[in-house]
Amino acid sequence: MDKIGIVGAGAWGTALAVVLTRAGRQPTLWAHEPAVVHAIRTVRRNPIFLPDIDIPGTVTVTDDLAAVAANDAVLLAVPAQHLRGVCRVLAPHWPKGAPAIICAKGIEQGSGALMTELVAQELPQARLAILSGPTFAAEVARGQPTAVTLASGEPDLAAQLVTLIGSPTFRPYASGDPVGVAVGGAVKNVLAIGCGVVEGRALGDNARAALITRGLAELARLVVAKGGRMETCMGLSGLGDLVLTASSRQSRNYSTGLGLGQGKPLEDLLGARHDVVEGVATAPAVLALAARLGVEMPVCAAVAALIDGRMTIDETIGALLARPFKSELGRTAIER
Amino acid sequence: MDKIGIVGAGAWGTALAVVLTRAGRQPTLWAHEPAVVHAIRTVRRNPIFLPDIDIPGTVTVTDDLAAVAANDAVLLAVPAQHLRGVCRVLAPHWPKGAPAIICAKGIEQGSGALMTELVAQELPQARLAILSGPTFAAEVARGQPTAVTLASGEPDLAAQLVTLIGSPTFRPYASGDPVGVAVGGAVKNVLAIGCGVVEGRALGDNARAALITRGLAELARLVVAKGGRMETCMGLSGLGDLVLTASSRQSRNYSTGLGLGQGKPLEDLLGARHDVVEGVATAPAVLALAARLGVEMPVCAAVAALIDGRMTIDETIGALLARPFKSELGRTAIER
Repeated sequence: MDKIGIVGAGAWGTALAVVLTRAGRQPTLWAHEPAVVHAIRTVRRNPIFLPDIDIPGTVTVTDDLAAVAANDAVLLAVPAQHLRGVCRVLAPHWPKGAPAIICAKGIEQGSGALMTELVAQELPQARLAILSGPTFAAEVARGQPTAVTLASGEPDLAAQLVTLIGSPTFRPYASGDPVGVAVGGAVKNVLAIGCGVVEGRALGDNARAALITRGLAELARLVVAKGGRMETCMGLSGLGDLVLTASSRQSRNYSTGLGLGQGKPLEDLLGARHDVVEGVATAPAVLALAARLGVEMPVCAAVAALIDGRMTIDETIGALLARPFKSELGRTAIER
Repeated sequence: MDKIGIVGAGAWGTALAVVLTRAGRQPTLWAHEPAVVHAIRTVRRNPIFLPDIDIPGTVTVTDDLAAVAANDAVLLAVPAQHLRGVCRVLAPHWPKGAPAIICAKGIEQGSGALMTELVAQELPQARLAILSGPTFAAEVARGQPTAVTLASGEPDLAAQLVTLIGSPTFRPYASGDPVGVAVGGAVKNVLAIGCGVVEGRALGDNARAALITRGLAELARLVVAKGGRMETCMGLSGLGDLVLTASSRQSRNYSTGLGLGQGKPLEDLLGARHDVVEGVATAPAVLALAARLGVEMPVCAAVAALIDGRMTIDETIGALLARPFKSELGRTAIER
């Protein structure tokens, strides 16, 4: 099981291709943009999504999506809102029982589907796993130490994939809770926007730390309501990824929030980027899902209301910081 | 209950005096250093420990430690390793039943006593509470929004003190778990040194986020072993304070670790400061306590070994990052 497909050559897909060569694999990377295919083929770089990183010659790049399905395992690293369409193209070519490793973080608008649910619907013949954690792509590509969660409902598969993709500086840890991983990865991007807003308003590190604490509590409520596990929230794909995303300008979601907090219009902030800010599309999807499950998520609600213009920035700040906890959050929030 | 004593005019004690005047109280602040007493009296500033903050005229400053006991409640904001000596001076003057609010974060060397245990021994006539959370002193003094945990074994007392010290930008949340708060506040400073080391070595944000995740798991193990509650670890005094301290150069512990990671000698780093880096003294005390209780704390162990010269910086990095998790930390670490 050495031949691995990677669908999506954004920053994360490209970094995964680099890190897989370090694990001794032969990745084939599918890129949506002809310019990316061309650049990787000719200069071994992805100047649009992951500049300054050399892409080894052992990475094959392709524009043939269907062909990528014909690998021993496939990593799905496209934006969350595009994953269903991509899966539909892959489905007819997907070998029965071949593993799909979800590397997208989000919840689908409209359906409210988790990435795991969506792939199970579209690729029913795949064996499912999901990879998530605190992973700035450039750091992974440079070989800086990174640890991630790799979850599957099939313990054998998780263990097998850990060996397949792991290397000394990129350590996956097996988990049996794909739902907890999928929810955590989606919600943390929305929370990161809120934390960025707080920094954009120069409210200080104390306020941001309080908001991260409150945010993890609401993330955990949704995980548990969806049938995931509390301890997953406290691991790399929950707390770890939230801490990373909600405190660094390297994060697209955090820096988008930061711009919003400084009073810049969302359209300008998104228009200036060529990559996807997952939390923007996922915010309303998180809220709809939370409403359906009867879960209170005031931080995500404030972010969603700011994004779609129902709340001003001042109202949002009020909602983010007002009464962040009931008694101490532990009792009311985490334990329910 | 308007007259409040504050013992210790470091950055935190001074900020507490400022924030208490915002709550409408009349604080009396005891300073150890005559220069601090003089500066606050004459120019309403504390140039040594909290420069650039105006100290309102409603704050009385004193050099008479015994006299501070004669207040409606007293906040104890001295360094952890000095708290016992201070309590012994206060004890003969302490009114029976007057509340002591511990604002120190650490574990006593030698005895291994938590701050709550130490004060219970030395001030048996006091009613005990402990205040902790993500609180950079300068932000609190400037009135930037801050939320903290205020814990007491007596629910009535916690509720009363919340009202006494709270104001719109400084919100205490009541907790019934003083042990969990005391352990969390002590351990997070040690973990912050480790996170600083990782930044000092330029290992990246991914590695730091993984270390914070691993660190919270070992903090939680010690809390539970001491009889505290898991949910306290996930609140402001656990996760919240850890996130703050382990990701900002505003933190003395984090910036000391950063210097160590850059290869600077500990003596030079501490010699250049006039304030106390709590994690340095607490590291061996945490380890001794953990050993007595049979709790594994590999991150704290690595920090302690680096501090006392038993480990080189390269060995420390290895210990901080090697095999950070067993399967996924949730199962092996958090749930035990």
